[in-house]
Amino acid sequence: MTKRLWDKGNALDTEVHRFTVGLDHVFDQRLAVFDAVASAAHARMLNRIGVLESKECSSLLSELQKIAEESRAGEFSISPDLEDCHTAIEMRLTETLGEAGKKIHTGRSRNDQVLVALRLFLREELLGHLELLEDLVSVLTEKAKQELVTPLPGYTHMQRAMPTTAATQILSYAEWSQALVHDGLSLLHSLNWNPLGVGSGFGVPLELDRDYTSKLLSFEQTQPNPIFVQSTRGREELKFLNWLTDISSLIEKSALDLLLFSTQEFGFVSIPVEFTTGSSIMPQKRNPDVLELLRAQASRVRAMRDELQGILAKLPSSYHRDLQYAKEPLFRCTDEVRRAVTIFTAVFPKLSFNRERALEMFEGELFATDEAFRLVALGEPFRDAYLHAAEKLKNGEIPVAELTEAFLAREKVRCEKELLELELRRTSIAKVIAGVRDAHASVCRDIFKEP
Amino acid sequence: MTKRLWDKGNALDTEVHRFTVGLDHVFDQRLAVFDAVASAAHARMLNRIGVLESKECSSLLSELQKIAEESRAGEFSISPDLEDCHTAIEMRLTETLGEAGKKIHTGRSRNDQVLVALRLFLREELLGHLELLEDLVSVLTEKAKQELVTPLPGYTHMQRAMPTTAATQILSYAEWSQALVHDGLSLLHSLNWNPLGVGSGFGVPLELDRDYTSKLLSFEQTQPNPIFVQSTRGREELKFLNWLTDISSLIEKSALDLLLFSTQEFGFVSIPVEFTTGSSIMPQKRNPDVLELLRAQASRVRAMRDELQGILAKLPSSYHRDLQYAKEPLFRCTDEVRRAVTIFTAVFPKLSFNRERALEMFEGELFATDEAFRLVALGEPFRDAYLHAAEKLKNGEIPVAELTEAFLAREKVRCEKELLELELRRTSIAKVIAGVRDAHASVCRDIFKEP
Amino acid sequence: MTKRLWDKGNALDTEVHRFTVGLDHVFDQRLAVFDAVASAAHARMLNRIGVLESKECSSLLSELQKIAEESRAGEFSISPDLEDCHTAIEMRLTETLGEAGKKIHTGRSRNDQVLVALRLFLREELLGHLELLEDLVSVLTEKAKQELVTPLPGYTHMQRAMPTTAATQILSYAEWSQALVHDGLSLLHSLNWNPLGVGSGFGVPLELDRDYTSKLLSFEQTQPNPIFVQSTRGREELKFLNWLTDISSLIEKSALDLLLFSTQEFGFVSIPVEFTTGSSIMPQKRNPDVLELLRAQASRVRAMRDELQGILAKLPSSYHRDLQYAKEPLFRCTDEVRRAVTIFTAVFPKLSFNRERALEMFEGELFATDEAFRLVALGEPFRDAYLHAAEKLKNGEIPVAELTEAFLAREKVRCEKELLELELRRTSIAKVIAGVRDAHASVCRDIFKEP
Amino acid sequence: MTKRLWDKGNALDTEVHRFTVGLDHVFDQRLAVFDAVASAAHARMLNRIGVLESKECSSLLSELQKIAEESRAGEFSISPDLEDCHTAIEMRLTETLGEAGKKIHTGRSRNDQVLVALRLFLREELLGHLELLEDLVSVLTEKAKQELVTPLPGYTHMQRAMPTTAATQILSYAEWSQALVHDGLSLLHSLNWNPLGVGSGFGVPLELDRDYTSKLLSFEQTQPNPIFVQSTRGREELKFLNWLTDISSLIEKSALDLLLFSTQEFGFVSIPVEFTTGSSIMPQKRNPDVLELLRAQASRVRAMRDELQGILAKLPSSYHRDLQYAKEPLFRCTDEVRRAVTIFTAVFPKLSFNRERALEMFEGELFATDEAFRLVALGEPFRDAYLHAAEKLKNGEIPVAELTEAFLAREKVRCEKELLELELRRTSIAKVIAGVRDAHASVCRDIFKEP
Repeated sequence: MTKRLWDKGNALDTEVHRFTVGLDHVFDQRLAVFDAVASAAHARMLNRIGVLESKECSSLLSELQKIAEESRAGEFSISPDLEDCHTAIEMRLTETLGEAGKKIHTGRSRNDQVLVALRLFLREELLGHLELLEDLVSVLTEKAKQELVTPLPGYTHMQRAMPTTAATQILSYAEWSQALVHDGLSLLHSLNWNPLGVGSGFGVPLELDRDYTSKLLSFEQTQPNPIFVQSTRGREELKFLNWLTDISSLIEKSALDLLLFSTQEFGFVSIPVEFTTGSSIMPQKRNPDVLELLRAQASRVRAMRDELQGILAKLPSSYHRDLQYAKEPLFRCTDEVRRAVTIFTAVFPKLSFNRERALEMFEGELFATDEAFRLVALGEPFRDAYLHAAEKLKNGEIPVAELTEAFLAREKVRCEKELLELELRRTSIAKVIAGVRDAHASVCRDIFKEP
Repeated sequence: MTKRLWDKGNALDTEVHRFTVGLDHVFDQRLAVFDAVASAAHARMLNRIGVLESKECSSLLSELQKIAEESRAGEFSISPDLEDCHTAIEMRLTETLGEAGKKIHTGRSRNDQVLVALRLFLREELLGHLELLEDLVSVLTEKAKQELVTPLPGYTHMQRAMPTTAATQILSYAEWSQALVHDGLSLLHSLNWNPLGVGSGFGVPLELDRDYTSKLLSFEQTQPNPIFVQSTRGREELKFLNWLTDISSLIEKSALDLLLFSTQEFGFVSIPVEFTTGSSIMPQKRNPDVLELLRAQASRVRAMRDELQGILAKLPSSYHRDLQYAKEPLFRCTDEVRRAVTIFTAVFPKLSFNRERALEMFEGELFATDEAFRLVALGEPFRDAYLHAAEKLKNGEIPVAELTEAFLAREKVRCEKELLELELRRTSIAKVIAGVRDAHASVCRDIFKEP
Repeated sequence: MTKRLWDKGNALDTEVHRFTVGLDHVFDQRLAVFDAVASAAHARMLNRIGVLESKECSSLLSELQKIAEESRAGEFSISPDLEDCHTAIEMRLTETLGEAGKKIHTGRSRNDQVLVALRLFLREELLGHLELLEDLVSVLTEKAKQELVTPLPGYTHMQRAMPTTAATQILSYAEWSQALVHDGLSLLHSLNWNPLGVGSGFGVPLELDRDYTSKLLSFEQTQPNPIFVQSTRGREELKFLNWLTDISSLIEKSALDLLLFSTQEFGFVSIPVEFTTGSSIMPQKRNPDVLELLRAQASRVRAMRDELQGILAKLPSSYHRDLQYAKEPLFRCTDEVRRAVTIFTAVFPKLSFNRERALEMFEGELFATDEAFRLVALGEPFRDAYLHAAEKLKNGEIPVAELTEAFLAREKVRCEKELLELELRRTSIAKVIAGVRDAHASVCRDIFKEP
Repeated sequence: MTKRLWDKGNALDTEVHRFTVGLDHVFDQRLAVFDAVASAAHARMLNRIGVLESKECSSLLSELQKIAEESRAGEFSISPDLEDCHTAIEMRLTETLGEAGKKIHTGRSRNDQVLVALRLFLREELLGHLELLEDLVSVLTEKAKQELVTPLPGYTHMQRAMPTTAATQILSYAEWSQALVHDGLSLLHSLNWNPLGVGSGFGVPLELDRDYTSKLLSFEQTQPNPIFVQSTRGREELKFLNWLTDISSLIEKSALDLLLFSTQEFGFVSIPVEFTTGSSIMPQKRNPDVLELLRAQASRVRAMRDELQGILAKLPSSYHRDLQYAKEPLFRCTDEVRRAVTIFTAVFPKLSFNRERALEMFEGELFATDEAFRLVALGEPFRDAYLHAAEKLKNGEIPVAELTEAFLAREKVRCEKELLELELRRTSIAKVIAGVRDAHASVCRDIFKEP
């Protein structure tokens, strides 16, 4: 067995070793690029404070760049013996560069090393999700424009309530997505601080220039108290997962709506046949499996969040090996939500809204409230108009055609205004996101360059 | 039985009625003041758009002010027959003012009425929690100042690792509290938008001036799409509860630390005898019940969050009666966390840190890393120094006294710097919070005044 | 402040005391009767082993019987100062009986005292739920008998699939309820063991006759290892709560079915108007609030289970004050589920099934599978018949009337057979439950009698 | 793309297909053997009722046996195009046997086919866990025998309380494990009923002999109502997962104990160096990672249970594609718990208990209660003795040596008695388990034989 860095001679029972390592060597293939980037920043800082000579620093930067490229290309594999990407990278540097490799771990611990790599990973994932959500907003507003005057009965308690339009329904998802973008940006700020430099949670007896590393890695702040830094392990991930649960709640509710609307009984929405599946026993069936799985995935996402939370709840301050299990829910959850948002964005524009079916339901009862307000406009106090409209409904005296026309015209104006404002907000926030993307990209590009 | 507003003659079976009403009439006593405030804004808007005459508006404002005062004083009781504060207030206005009372519900539904009252309630609760967290930061920094050079062994894996100080440990809680304040402020912005004016989720057929209501109630935005507004029912509460779980996670981890440190075996922390309890069978026992309950409460808080989340997960868009059950976890949870933070803030300063006991543990093994870095400073590559220090530890050659002195001096400087920066951040954010408090207070004061 | 039993002079800060006591003095009013019963058994055992004289024992039994009666009548109130029913009862005995009262706590701790009272409470609650479930089975089978040939389209993926009947749907709930009864009986056996006599989890240095107490209290076993006994604190409750979540899952799924079937679009089920509520803004609405709350309550129940579980997950062996918070989810949860089952049982028979509406949907597509099997019966391999039936469906060649008639006749036979078997199982298990009820009742009646 | 069985010509968008298939083709490699077994029973039943000729039946049995063997050997791979093992097996039978293959799906649906395969899988997994738990009980009782008179301080509230022994502590885990075996056996009975023959949840229009299939597959009952059968999809798995959470709760609590006892401060338990790991920065550290991961895994297990439960909570009766996601938590969870129990069973015997360290803590305070009872034995009422003992403790008058000796002797007797009884219970239940194992094994062996 390859010698692990902390191994001072005692052989670990193989099974127990396998158990403790778990799947880290697999997950960490995605983390390696971020470890390489953070290690480059660390090396440049060590050079600045005189721990590394410039030549050593250069050779480290050059090798780390190779590792980053291999990792991005999926070609940096980690043997289970080496446990994780941090050991694997340090081994590689030591084997390739000798003394310089042995020095790279000066002034850091695997604890802050993991923290900073995860922070960079979170930053990248969060940004990716923000961009996907922006795509979703675009797709939804586009669809809403096509359905501006498509009638749709509005339900409360799953009972017909008042008239609405497909556009209004679709824009409700768009507004929600846009709100999630706002929340995501706040979150990005709140977790964009630098944990590197606190060692195993008690500082290191060496005068590090942590602010320099923060600057190199484009962190907004240097995270101060070393014990607090350790306390954020798992906690930043938890906030991210909480936000992901919010995203999947949107998709879940949309799926619940669309599954109801696409029953034969409601019939307002049709799913194209290529997004449905058949039955092994019933020849006539076409089933909305995609939407059902989108409904289900929110429960998976919440479970992963709860998994992480449950692990954290038992731990006093500082590092415990339990935290290793924080990686799996993080990686699986971000992938799960990415897949769900992508599929939802792809499928939504293909849905068709059935105007005729909806119009059949624009009957008197749907307009009872409109009629009450028409009476209010003619001077009746609301509570009297309410009873009066109920009376007229019973007698079939609600002027449906007239009210329908007025309603669709009014709602079209409202939606157009909403679309305009939403577009303005979207454009302005898209610029912010693009700016962040550029900043992060330049970190990954420039960090390996000669200082 | 008193006539309920939507009751058009059908008698409800009493048991079923009791079941559907649940505890709303109890919870809503706290909500009534916010309904009064929002109703006042609604009345002024109705007056502005010509639905209410100025005299009617004045009489409504005056009666609503009385209701608000009664509610603040805990004197506005709601009969179970009236179900909730919204019905109770409308009944009261109708009984007292006649026609004007019958008009107040014009252009709104109980759905957006509940939404706006809950939004105002959330805003007030959130602000209260922010202020409590600020108190906690003050108490913790004060305590940290007293323990600047109190040694404390640092643990990872619950095994002694490296030296630290009580101040660093305490400041880790302070930094966390301060970070929670930042998150809370972001949240306050994100939920400070006006839902009033969307009726039951499909708009109302009346030209309302929603932006005017927003201005009167000091909302930052008017929440647009009516279906989306309904989708935020329960969701804003969920975000708030998520934030409350973060607060209680801080207290939980602190309690886990302090319970461990206050065992006879660790012995670094003493809990004053008046905060401990005895045993019914063991005469000698003094038990840290307060800290144990603080540890447990985080699980209660998370459960309430999950309760709300589970209720929401099943619901398609728009209102369903399930949402009534969103109130209980909200009210219980905010009270639970307020109590926990208050108790924790009260108890923490009374804890005493045992310097002598901690110093006993400042032995060679705690300084092995420091020694390794001392060797690094003398020129050894880190990985060699690491093995060298392990060797010296085995031979009892670590210069403990010297390293202890150096460590405490270094850590004192670091903590003083941290305290300074933390104080700066705290002061600046305290001003923001005070500003928000003033703004909200003036809404509640001015809303009832003659327009 | 009244002197608490373990109070040896140190004054507790009032706020902290209030916090640690929480709501125990309220919850414990329900527990007091069980503490009285268990205390009577303990007293008789102490008499048997010579710790109590017969006269002392008699006076204790007589006073405990009074307490039990007061508690059953809701007249045994516990002052917050006394914290819980155990202290309150011991105080009362001491005040009333002097020396005998001071001796009752011999050989037990509050820990095993709580355990045994909770065990008796669990036993009683469990039995109550079993009886309610039996009622539900009766109500459901009765309803099924009335709807034996009521057609109902069967859905998979919420898309029409194959024909079924209302009776089959209703019997699915009955079978589930009956299965829950079986699970509940297993649970009752598994938790019917005696924890009393292990003190605070480490035994007591006194030769107790624990098997005698077990016999007096009708426990099936004496729970052995004292540390394990403590480990079951909260765990037995958790199993009970898990079972309660299963019950509420049945109600949740039924509510989901009925809410879907009672939309105007599906229209198979009508809810009588007295179990619906109206809208504050829409005069025509009748909403199925009862079913919606029944859908929501399952999430509450699961949350209470998670609350308990989260509290337990952090605890090493033996007693910790966190366990006090195990009471609230237990008490609230059992009440919540009792209420839900009661309401569901009351409402279900009032639902009406709409045969005509269902029959409208008995069209060709619903019988495609039946047709395929008709072709199989005529000799085609299934996979060929499957494609053939799809072809015939397209051409409108499915003989619907004939297949409908055959189906309803066949299903009637199947349901009658199922009803018969279900009735047999129900009757036999009802006898078991009645036997347990008698045994428990006689414990509570005889325990206070002169030994 | 290979033609899927329900594919009647419409091309599915590849991405959406990949999304809907998910990982089923991977999970199902483990399920294939059970599908082969159940298909064999189905074929024999079809032969018995005349749907299959004996020659067809024989050829099917023979091919299914091959598939079962390939699957057991891990050699039955399923292409993603074929989605799941059910389609893959049917395709294979059709390709190899022609007409006979086309007939195998007669009278069943993929829904009941999945149900029966999962039921057989559950049965096998449950049995495997029962056997592992029996091993654990053996290992623990063996260890307890070695530590019969090893002193250990007993803690409540993590404060020293009363004397106990290592044996008592260890036996508390053994009793718990044994109780889990009992619960597992109840569960095995409760889920051992036959779902096959209900088609897609509405029966099949063919006179199947379901009881014959039940007999062939050694099910205790034929599960009646077809809609109820579908309702048990996911629900039986949930019960199993609930039981698995109970198992991991035992391991979690044990790990919490052992982690506390193996701190340097407590020092009662030593973990052999080969089961600890080192630190990348601290040369002296030996960390108890195995126990930490065992503590963490319970949160993973609970999360998987919650995942399943969350998925189920949203679903009306009958099949929905969401149920596909029920497989992943089931498979991952059973593996996770198997691994944890195995590791725990392997590691536990290697722990060593430190008698000297424990004995240091056998001081006066630990014996205050014993002393109180000694005074009770001398005639003082308990409440007076309680105060008297507290007094003596303060004055250092507790006769520790004498009480220690008496205690260890007494506890040894108690533990020996407990061991004896536990062994009796274990042996008797081991026979039951072996019987079940034989019965299941003979099903898998005999099912493919010529009828």
